[in-house]
Amino acid sequence: MKIGIIGTGVVGRSMGSALGGLGHETMLGTRDLKQTMDRTNRDVYGNPPFSEWIGNNRGVKVGTFAEAAAHGELVVNATEGVHSIEALKLSGDANLRGKILVDLSNPLDFSKGKPPSLLVCNTDSLGERIQKAFPEAKVVKTLNTVNALVMTNPGRIMGSDHTIFISGNDAGAKGRIADLLRSLGWKDIIDLGDITTARGTEMILPLWVRLFGVLKSPVFNFKVVR
Amino acid sequence: MKIGIIGTGVVGRSMGSALGGLGHETMLGTRDLKQTMDRTNRDVYGNPPFSEWIGNNRGVKVGTFAEAAAHGELVVNATEGVHSIEALKLSGDANLRGKILVDLSNPLDFSKGKPPSLLVCNTDSLGERIQKAFPEAKVVKTLNTVNALVMTNPGRIMGSDHTIFISGNDAGAKGRIADLLRSLGWKDIIDLGDITTARGTEMILPLWVRLFGVLKSPVFNFKVVR
Repeated sequence: MKIGIIGTGVVGRSMGSALGGLGHETMLGTRDLKQTMDRTNRDVYGNPPFSEWIGNNRGVKVGTFAEAAAHGELVVNATEGVHSIEALKLSGDANLRGKILVDLSNPLDFSKGKPPSLLVCNTDSLGERIQKAFPEAKVVKTLNTVNALVMTNPGRIMGSDHTIFISGNDAGAKGRIADLLRSLGWKDIIDLGDITTARGTEMILPLWVRLFGVLKSPVFNFKVVR
Repeated sequence: MKIGIIGTGVVGRSMGSALGGLGHETMLGTRDLKQTMDRTNRDVYGNPPFSEWIGNNRGVKVGTFAEAAAHGELVVNATEGVHSIEALKLSGDANLRGKILVDLSNPLDFSKGKPPSLLVCNTDSLGERIQKAFPEAKVVKTLNTVNALVMTNPGRIMGSDHTIFISGNDAGAKGRIADLLRSLGWKDIIDLGDITTARGTEMILPLWVRLFGVLKSPVFNFKVVR
């Protein structure tokens, strides 16, 4: 399948490598291609510059936000939540129309320091805002409850014996994304319901952030034990 | 240990039975003792009237909010979040001073229908509000992420192989409550940090509520898999 990934950060790269490795024709999109390719420094997390990463992932294409969105039969939002709506607008409404839009983002607000609070929560969610902004896309919220290291490799923790959630208004779209998740190694996939259920998964971020602090590692996840 | 439990609903009764069963001198407190004892109907959940419950739990005492708080060396807030601060004020500041106050409540707002939203979240929490309202109590937030059926009997799910969280400013108080949790059967207890970390555990309620809808049972919990 042709997949366009909006965002070239750790989440976009992790998804690009994994989905490319599964044989999907994957293109990562960035706001400013020249600026992204010209970077030579590691980012604040110590990740190598994008040009080095793309050199090691020759099967993955790179383009602008709009080129990546146009390329994909399926589009993945892998941008930071604070920029997601703007990045998707730059991707082009026409390039998202009728497509499944997988939303991995979280509305984290670091503007007041750490730990972050949420830019939207409780009676609304970023998933819902994206669905409202792009009513003809089929938004499926998933994977936002785990770190990039876990998203594409759930087996690295306890043989994938933990849970991932899906929210979205379109049952067919959720079914296709559940298949994609299974291809990445996810076993326990819970469909929470329509896109308003994204409130619940986005609102576990404050707990996630504190657990990250206590456990000193982002390699953990929640299992719904029942 | 003498334990005062503020609230005679399902959470208060469950804690009363369990802690009484462990040999603690337990007293449940209610706003209006006569009204509570005079009830003859089952509640909306189908639970028997309080007088019937107390008849089956002869070791557990019952009194007003203030009597239960005065009785306890340890006080447990088992009221609905919307009423918690008021109920604790009726319990009496002097009866809480210097004591550990275990807060089980969640700030659920059902006034706009179901699913509930939260009355406070993101940059504040009910746990913090209670600590601010009773600065001389040692507030420990815990057990608010599970149903009453699970709180006092974690072993009913997967041999207690799941997680409970503690938040609070006083390390000694958290240590004593961790011991109490272990006596109830809890095995994986994560101390998240100070009382501001209650934001995280209260904010998983929107996900909890949706999972209750999907799983059709409140008998589940989260395990932090790492």
